[in-house]
Amino acid sequence: MAKIPPVKGTRDFYPEKMALRNWILSGWQSISLRNGFLEYDGPIFEHLQLFTQKSGEGIASELFSLTDRGGRDLAIRPEMTPTLARMVNQQFNALPKPIKWFSMPRCCRAEKPQKGRLREFFQWNCDIVGTDSTLADAECIFTAVDYLRSVGLTAADIVVRLSSRAMLAALLADLKFNPDEFEKVYVLLDKRPKLSAEAFAELAAEQIPNPDQRKKLMQVQSLQSLKEVGELLHTDQARAALAGLTELFDQLDQLGIADYCQFDITIVRGLAYYTGPVFEIFDRQSRLRAVAAGGRYDNLLAGFGGPQASGTGFGMGDVVLEILLTEKDLLKPKAAEVDFFLIDAEPKLFDQLLQVTAQLRQAGLTAAFDYRRTSIGKQLKQASALNTRFVIILGAETIESNMVTIKDMAQGKQSQILLNKLLENPRQVL
Amino acid sequence: MAKIPPVKGTRDFYPEKMALRNWILSGWQSISLRNGFLEYDGPIFEHLQLFTQKSGEGIASELFSLTDRGGRDLAIRPEMTPTLARMVNQQFNALPKPIKWFSMPRCCRAEKPQKGRLREFFQWNCDIVGTDSTLADAECIFTAVDYLRSVGLTAADIVVRLSSRAMLAALLADLKFNPDEFEKVYVLLDKRPKLSAEAFAELAAEQIPNPDQRKKLMQVQSLQSLKEVGELLHTDQARAALAGLTELFDQLDQLGIADYCQFDITIVRGLAYYTGPVFEIFDRQSRLRAVAAGGRYDNLLAGFGGPQASGTGFGMGDVVLEILLTEKDLLKPKAAEVDFFLIDAEPKLFDQLLQVTAQLRQAGLTAAFDYRRTSIGKQLKQASALNTRFVIILGAETIESNMVTIKDMAQGKQSQILLNKLLENPRQVL
Repeated sequence: MAKIPPVKGTRDFYPEKMALRNWILSGWQSISLRNGFLEYDGPIFEHLQLFTQKSGEGIASELFSLTDRGGRDLAIRPEMTPTLARMVNQQFNALPKPIKWFSMPRCCRAEKPQKGRLREFFQWNCDIVGTDSTLADAECIFTAVDYLRSVGLTAADIVVRLSSRAMLAALLADLKFNPDEFEKVYVLLDKRPKLSAEAFAELAAEQIPNPDQRKKLMQVQSLQSLKEVGELLHTDQARAALAGLTELFDQLDQLGIADYCQFDITIVRGLAYYTGPVFEIFDRQSRLRAVAAGGRYDNLLAGFGGPQASGTGFGMGDVVLEILLTEKDLLKPKAAEVDFFLIDAEPKLFDQLLQVTAQLRQAGLTAAFDYRRTSIGKQLKQASALNTRFVIILGAETIESNMVTIKDMAQGKQSQILLNKLLENPRQVL
Repeated sequence: MAKIPPVKGTRDFYPEKMALRNWILSGWQSISLRNGFLEYDGPIFEHLQLFTQKSGEGIASELFSLTDRGGRDLAIRPEMTPTLARMVNQQFNALPKPIKWFSMPRCCRAEKPQKGRLREFFQWNCDIVGTDSTLADAECIFTAVDYLRSVGLTAADIVVRLSSRAMLAALLADLKFNPDEFEKVYVLLDKRPKLSAEAFAELAAEQIPNPDQRKKLMQVQSLQSLKEVGELLHTDQARAALAGLTELFDQLDQLGIADYCQFDITIVRGLAYYTGPVFEIFDRQSRLRAVAAGGRYDNLLAGFGGPQASGTGFGMGDVVLEILLTEKDLLKPKAAEVDFFLIDAEPKLFDQLLQVTAQLRQAGLTAAFDYRRTSIGKQLKQASALNTRFVIILGAETIESNMVTIKDMAQGKQSQILLNKLLENPRQVL
């Protein structure tokens, strides 16, 4: 029988890799909770139409689609946002506002595996729906930074590049673009960092045939500060967008993460549904893809048959994050360990060894023993291989006086204790 | 835009349901760890052939299959065992033995949704590979019971029904069945509890045309104790199988779970790969499907192109478990709560409120505030809706003397504390 390999672009999580994944996901979870988000999840697959209807063109072409026995077209989720919109829409009126939710879905995209991109990954999603307060945008950005800071990334390592779709829209209106052209321009600008200067110039000439308009758009894209932007803006709508972004920067400052955040007008996001502040988080050298990205969406729920309600959120994938943390030597999952490893120095004590093992486990402690009834030396070796903290040896003195020997594997010291006393409170020796 | 519904047979985990799922899965995880299992996981999909090659016929017909852009046939995992076999085979020589692993995969089966069966579910898998010691079987059964007992199920609620494929094989040999007929008989016997007496009799007559053989098989199936079985056995192989099962019952007794375990010769398991002890865990009234099931497999790895190495394991799904725990009123997930909800009694204190919020979160505590800058009364209401433990009010006295008011929401009491002192160690008030 031939061995069948794993599918290209997927990962096998052997225990060491699994510990690392758990370390990342439990970090996401605890940071979400302390920032007041509640966890949710949806199914791994949805009706295909949920994804083709509203996702960015890139995502829709990368679906793993399937057909069930009833002939329904389904697809594995490539992202969480459509499921979030579906779930919120289903219960919108019953849910307390703002809806402040997070999820850590496994997602799949049928793309070519490459550095930072796999066909299967985990993506942390935080969203706040049902409020248009910039405080919600500030909280989302703070939560992403709160996590990255908690694992040791400083403002010298990463940067939140932040802009506003609403402000860019005002600038585009000033450059006489029609509102129905905006989306085309967003997609074009979003592609810029991924293309060579020549390839981008070619694409820009194709998408924006008017050379004057094109030139002015590039001038706008080179603005360095909110002050420079302010000097260009004329309409009330534009000034309101600028004021909103300025307020957001102030709030991020009060939250203590101003040093992580930077205005960057070139941040646009390709997805159609963004309407307000948009951001991407990068390593400072921009050598890697974005670690996280998000923004405000006013029409997302309505786009899925729901009410007009504004929301804001972000996603952070585990693949780029893991590369970044590896490079910075910040991956620190806890190694698995055994609290107590039991050894019977007398074969007739084996029944008692089983009893004690069961009792220690019921008390919440990790207890193990060697299935092969071999020498004490071999059993100690097994204990050591399992990263054991304390070895408990049942021997002649256990039969005579209920005493067991406890060996501290880190210190190499050993002592004796009454078995009953140990079992009364096994944590006393840890 | 029309609303698109979720796919039939899947679940939306709104925060309350998600808390329940997390409660179940974190229970599985902590019980696995204290019993010495290490966590692993594989991809959500595999090459289709991995599942069609060796899974039971029932499972193979229930696959969600898909094709990637390279034309490869893939399928979402309907169970974990093939992935386990693949992963163990890939690194068999490098892995320390015994391999003692657990996983809690999301699995999908394209079957008709019904009570206790969904098209998407979570299944706890524990396996010990690379040892033929019955201690490994005992540890698997103990681990399953350790979990069920930890959530409050007693020996009056559930029962582990235990038999042995090896022993049944010896009995079948005695009844002059050819070894190549055994699998057919296992599948037949496994179907018995799911069929009416008539339907079973009809199927049995079809599968075992010899009436005498059929009658004797039914007599064997009515044996009530290991002693009765012993009286029927003639060969050394048969006696060895009986001795192994007796030893296993002794070990389960030493581990303190004899009252949960019961010999039941009708437990056979339909899957082809079992070769030794097999068990199923049921509610005592047998009103529900099995909560968990497993057994020993000698040829599983070899069946996937790997070495001849024995293993034993079990699976427990979340769907039947949740029904059982609901019926017994044992579902006790922890409700989400907010440690500190901050209120500014003076609008100019809002910047400071944001600063304090960020500091409390960095200290690991859940902190929240109201985005709407409304009255204190409304903010208190919001705090209450979020299940807040303590409200912190910044007011005139904060400006004057750095004091804040702390309101204990459960007790209704309030007191004052220096803000600096609170932030030095916020846990002091919890």
